[in-house]
Amino acid sequence: MNFSCILPYIIVNTNKQMKIYDLAIIGSGPAGYSAGIYAGRYNLSNIIIGKLQGGTMTQAHVISNYPGYNEISGIELSSKFKEQAQINGSEFLLESVVNIEKRNGTFSIKTDSNKEVLCKTIVVATGTDRSKLKIPKEDEYLGKGLSYCATCDSMFFKNKVTGVIGGGSASVMSALMLSDIAKKVYVIYRGTELKAEPRLINELTKKSNVEIIFSTLVTSLEGENRLERVKLSKEYNGSSYIDIDGLFVEIGCEPNNLVAQRLGLETDKKGYIKVDNEQRTNVEGVWASGDCTTNSNYFHQIVCAVSEGAIASNSVYAYLKEKAN
Amino acid sequence: MNFSCILPYIIVNTNKQMKIYDLAIIGSGPAGYSAGIYAGRYNLSNIIIGKLQGGTMTQAHVISNYPGYNEISGIELSSKFKEQAQINGSEFLLESVVNIEKRNGTFSIKTDSNKEVLCKTIVVATGTDRSKLKIPKEDEYLGKGLSYCATCDSMFFKNKVTGVIGGGSASVMSALMLSDIAKKVYVIYRGTELKAEPRLINELTKKSNVEIIFSTLVTSLEGENRLERVKLSKEYNGSSYIDIDGLFVEIGCEPNNLVAQRLGLETDKKGYIKVDNEQRTNVEGVWASGDCTTNSNYFHQIVCAVSEGAIASNSVYAYLKEKAN
Repeated sequence: MNFSCILPYIIVNTNKQMKIYDLAIIGSGPAGYSAGIYAGRYNLSNIIIGKLQGGTMTQAHVISNYPGYNEISGIELSSKFKEQAQINGSEFLLESVVNIEKRNGTFSIKTDSNKEVLCKTIVVATGTDRSKLKIPKEDEYLGKGLSYCATCDSMFFKNKVTGVIGGGSASVMSALMLSDIAKKVYVIYRGTELKAEPRLINELTKKSNVEIIFSTLVTSLEGENRLERVKLSKEYNGSSYIDIDGLFVEIGCEPNNLVAQRLGLETDKKGYIKVDNEQRTNVEGVWASGDCTTNSNYFHQIVCAVSEGAIASNSVYAYLKEKAN
Repeated sequence: MNFSCILPYIIVNTNKQMKIYDLAIIGSGPAGYSAGIYAGRYNLSNIIIGKLQGGTMTQAHVISNYPGYNEISGIELSSKFKEQAQINGSEFLLESVVNIEKRNGTFSIKTDSNKEVLCKTIVVATGTDRSKLKIPKEDEYLGKGLSYCATCDSMFFKNKVTGVIGGGSASVMSALMLSDIAKKVYVIYRGTELKAEPRLINELTKKSNVEIIFSTLVTSLEGENRLERVKLSKEYNGSSYIDIDGLFVEIGCEPNNLVAQRLGLETDKKGYIKVDNEQRTNVEGVWASGDCTTNSNYFHQIVCAVSEGAIASNSVYAYLKEKAN
């Protein structure tokens, strides 16, 4: 018996009974939720697929620059976004996408637990991943003194000595949070001046338990079983080492582009998905929005992500409406 | 005595004592407030100049598509934006701008009560004005049965007969609001099907006191002292006239471009200010954001305006920082 002939037939038959969503949104951060809210307003059936509800914004302890909320935690704001998408009709699938194919004009999305979602259009809103130090033993110490998320892990370092690597707003925010919990916070930065929002830098300079080490890299991580000290690229206070209990890496981010690769989306040199003013990619039926795209002047803000998500769903609606006519 | 010689000297001397803001934001809608919030985060001294606090969004009875608030009135959301800008350091001037000049690298902005504001940079966030019918007596009946704002004026028409002109989301939202207050609502639209969000259209079709008149224009306004009836471009139910107590005009908007003209900003054919991905205009030191620009795919949403405002202030900060170095 020739299974290779029968198998496609069975799959096609199964597919016929599966729901085909108007839109699948890949990524459950602010861009994804906003795309869901707007898709719902247009009566498009839609599903938001993403393992981390809220995406990286959930790592923000306090968000002060999202217009409408003077102070709100990332988790709370993302919950509001999600609830609003749900009220407007979005469904959710808490999984990671591992593959996507297009068959007869319909996209088939496969997840890590081998679930399949069929859809007419896709909005990619996969955001960014945290940049790594790319030094030995980085993976080994993860969760054993090394972290990429101060909001998640700072409470483990009460009255301990901590370090934050990086000089941007995310780094300074992490240092500020840690300074209220830890005994000591070293900010280790390769540059000669912090690049964070001036308001955050002002706050940081008021903290008595924070020391900033400029023009310096962390070159190795050491310790038995867990992180105990870091080696610096140049001496600080007469030593090349600092004893440290916790190290937070805040050196930026890189687009998360597995999905973009699977779909054959055009990206710029750094891997950000190229989109036009409608958030349209080079692949028919696929739009992208949020931190993973080339739009919004690469200004990775929640307020930009939600805007791009809204524009993407508006474009999807116009596309499906035109196809239906 | 030659006053023409002395006068400039006095003005210059006065100016020396005046505060020169890092940034003046012209327009007090969502784009302007967001620009203020972000400017504050960058420690830029800034003033938001605008007569209508909140801009046209204050006319929205219920906003359901701003991520973060499932249902909020335009007035409430704009108050939150304003408060947040204030907390972050924005000042406010409740006036209209009538002229702008650049002298020695500093902009001088004159308002309708002849106040002067000096600044190093400008973000234009002047939004749009409501399109008019451009038929006789339109100005005469304004406030006497004719209105451009259902949120503001619908309560004057309790148990009365009303009409809404237009077929987009703003028109349908106005008709929905009126249907709960007025005895009767005619939606008069030149097109053959409504262009509003499908969800809004669904709601409208459930209303028993709403009639939609397609492919029809209002050609004249009639009544003694106040609006009493409108003439239609073709007969409806056997008559060219409908008796009406209140008429709401919701036929779109046009960029408010007095300020753009004064500054010599490049616009597209319809008058929208041309901006690049940094929200920069063709004039050095001037950025623009929100509904008045060519960005965000002309998708006139609050969520897009706040994003553009944030990007503009980020660009202003980078510009001033570079100039200072």
